Amino acid sequence: MSNQPLNKKLHFELIREDSGARLGAVHTAFGRVDTPAFMPVGTAASVKGMMPEAVLQTGAQIILSNTYHLMLRPGADRVARLGGVRKMMNWKKPLLTDSGGFQVMSLGPLRKMDENGVTFKSHLDGSRHLLTPEISTEIQHKLDATITMAFDECTPFPATKSQAAESMALSMRWAARSRQAFVDRTGYGQFGIVQGSIYPDLRLQSIEQLHEIGFEGYAIGGLAVGEGQELMFETLSATTPHMQADKPRYLMGVGKPSDIVGAVMRGVDMFDCVLPTRSGRTGQAFTRFGAVNIKNARHADDTRPLDEACACPACTNYSRGYLHHLFKAEEIQGLSLLTWHNLTYYQELMSSIRHSIGKGVFNHFVSNFKEQQAQGDIEPL
Amino acid sequence: MSNQPLNKKLHFELIREDSGARLGAVHTAFGRVDTPAFMPVGTAASVKGMMPEAVLQTGAQIILSNTYHLMLRPGADRVARLGGVRKMMNWKKPLLTDSGGFQVMSLGPLRKMDENGVTFKSHLDGSRHLLTPEISTEIQHKLDATITMAFDECTPFPATKSQAAESMALSMRWAARSRQAFVDRTGYGQFGIVQGSIYPDLRLQSIEQLHEIGFEGYAIGGLAVGEGQELMFETLSATTPHMQADKPRYLMGVGKPSDIVGAVMRGVDMFDCVLPTRSGRTGQAFTRFGAVNIKNARHADDTRPLDEACACPACTNYSRGYLHHLFKAEEIQGLSLLTWHNLTYYQELMSSIRHSIGKGVFNHFVSNFKEQQAQGDIEPL
Repeated sequence: MSNQPLNKKLHFELIREDSGARLGAVHTAFGRVDTPAFMPVGTAASVKGMMPEAVLQTGAQIILSNTYHLMLRPGADRVARLGGVRKMMNWKKPLLTDSGGFQVMSLGPLRKMDENGVTFKSHLDGSRHLLTPEISTEIQHKLDATITMAFDECTPFPATKSQAAESMALSMRWAARSRQAFVDRTGYGQFGIVQGSIYPDLRLQSIEQLHEIGFEGYAIGGLAVGEGQELMFETLSATTPHMQADKPRYLMGVGKPSDIVGAVMRGVDMFDCVLPTRSGRTGQAFTRFGAVNIKNARHADDTRPLDEACACPACTNYSRGYLHHLFKAEEIQGLSLLTWHNLTYYQELMSSIRHSIGKGVFNHFVSNFKEQQAQGDIEPL
Repeated sequence: MSNQPLNKKLHFELIREDSGARLGAVHTAFGRVDTPAFMPVGTAASVKGMMPEAVLQTGAQIILSNTYHLMLRPGADRVARLGGVRKMMNWKKPLLTDSGGFQVMSLGPLRKMDENGVTFKSHLDGSRHLLTPEISTEIQHKLDATITMAFDECTPFPATKSQAAESMALSMRWAARSRQAFVDRTGYGQFGIVQGSIYPDLRLQSIEQLHEIGFEGYAIGGLAVGEGQELMFETLSATTPHMQADKPRYLMGVGKPSDIVGAVMRGVDMFDCVLPTRSGRTGQAFTRFGAVNIKNARHADDTRPLDEACACPACTNYSRGYLHHLFKAEEIQGLSLLTWHNLTYYQELMSSIRHSIGKGVFNHFVSNFKEQQAQGDIEPL
């Protein structure tokens, strides 16, 4: 449980299991990441509206940046010249980058996929680009990602079983090529991504193939793409028990607080999602008692804080009335404060989860959480 | 020179004079303001893109908010219910509010002026409002301004002498009514505003009438409205020598660094301007060697800081290349960082000015400043 410089590979320490949940730590070249962990998203090498010092204050120990956005602007070589994403943006802790696969798949008619990879047109200037497992891995190297993700196809939902099988098989061939292209460095690592849509036997096949290749961690991809929470939880329940216990498990792009709690119950260790940052910019705040839309007129004269139990600057220094005013007046400070609050809420959630697993009372935490959620939802998101 | 709670009126301490410049301090209920001082503008009770803690870190000891904007949104009574501007926005130091006069005069066909005051339509929703000396003073009281400004007409430029005389006379009648409406509190004060356009004898008449009314400070209005730096300096030279030496002198809405230095030479103590904040939001940075447009492509690969001698976060933690990227990617963090830098530059300028007056070498400071400006202007604003 030390925090000393790492002289070996990025690795996972499993500290305790409790009711399916895992307390652990990912040890990296840039410090430990306590798990279950939530990674704020800094798409273009900036967590929108936040200074990195503020992100750190929320309790975040790792952030995520997007390969697709950074390869187009400012460009991977330019990022490398500026010292990599971490140095460039003055984020001293670990950084995970996605592979770019998810974004280029979303480009629809702007992209063309074959065995080699994906050709696509930039949404910025229409310029033509190619992403392959090798190129994605090389770009992530240039970005100086502490954790590099394998290049894969995020299988669309819904998919027939044969579509899902074909897509998964391609992702597994790409995973092997991604691993081949990965340049190992002390305290850095690469994660493979489990695909297979909602089909347990495909998920199992995918896991077996990834284990055979061997990664420092394993992500669960192709969920939170429209299948709904119930089916996501079912798929997780059929997937995580087959994943190596001594490696971190990362559920990509998830999610709402209740998604996270349910996934932790099913053995997931890491999460990322734009929800707290994006919601903050539109005036939606997460609180222990559900969502608050600060733009709602009923907050205009409210001298109370957003959440009196929260220690973030938005809650300790300002009234709901002032936050409401900042959003009405379209002041930048408003969205910064609500983003700060939401990221604090998410990190508090993760910290409470870790604490309860550590004490062996995660079941109790879950009951309390569900009770609060049931009482809450005062202004559903 | 103490910083203890004030048990008397807001007052000015003149510490030293040097080559026309004055080193001093304005003592208020919420601490001292070292002069010459620059006040960052927080129009709608937020210095755009900045947290108040960041504004404080730049060295600012007082900020300015706009009565016109706040009376319309969120409304003066609402601000009062939220504890006044300072409490609402968590700014613990003094606050100056303008009278709203300048903004309503700018509304053109949307406003109608008579002896009583100005009727105008809100730029937000077209609703009809009235500002008079009494109403403006009452609103500023509700906003909890540490320094309240008299309600006046900012004489347009150019104005014939008879137009300027008529306008000034109205402002003087309004100044008397503003003073009458002012509710005195310990450590709070009200400033009268000298008008008279570019006509020395009108300025002198205005000063005499304001002195007769008696204020805690005197502002110079109706400058920086298109007359140019030379005529502004000439007018200042003909104005400040007649102003009470034991009261602070505030040049409203000024200005560029060279405007400030020239005005300090002519005995001005206080300034406010949107230039550092507005420029910061558009990617224009002030440096010791002139202006830098960070959006310029030549900064894209530049690993050097904006200004290596500057101690602000933008200069100590980031490269020009990264700042360039943030602006290209339209990341909020970029405009926050450049605003932070510009406000730091302005406060450093004021601090250097004060230091040189204190040492009796203000002339030397001015020569150096002019030399740097001449070498500089690498990318004129």
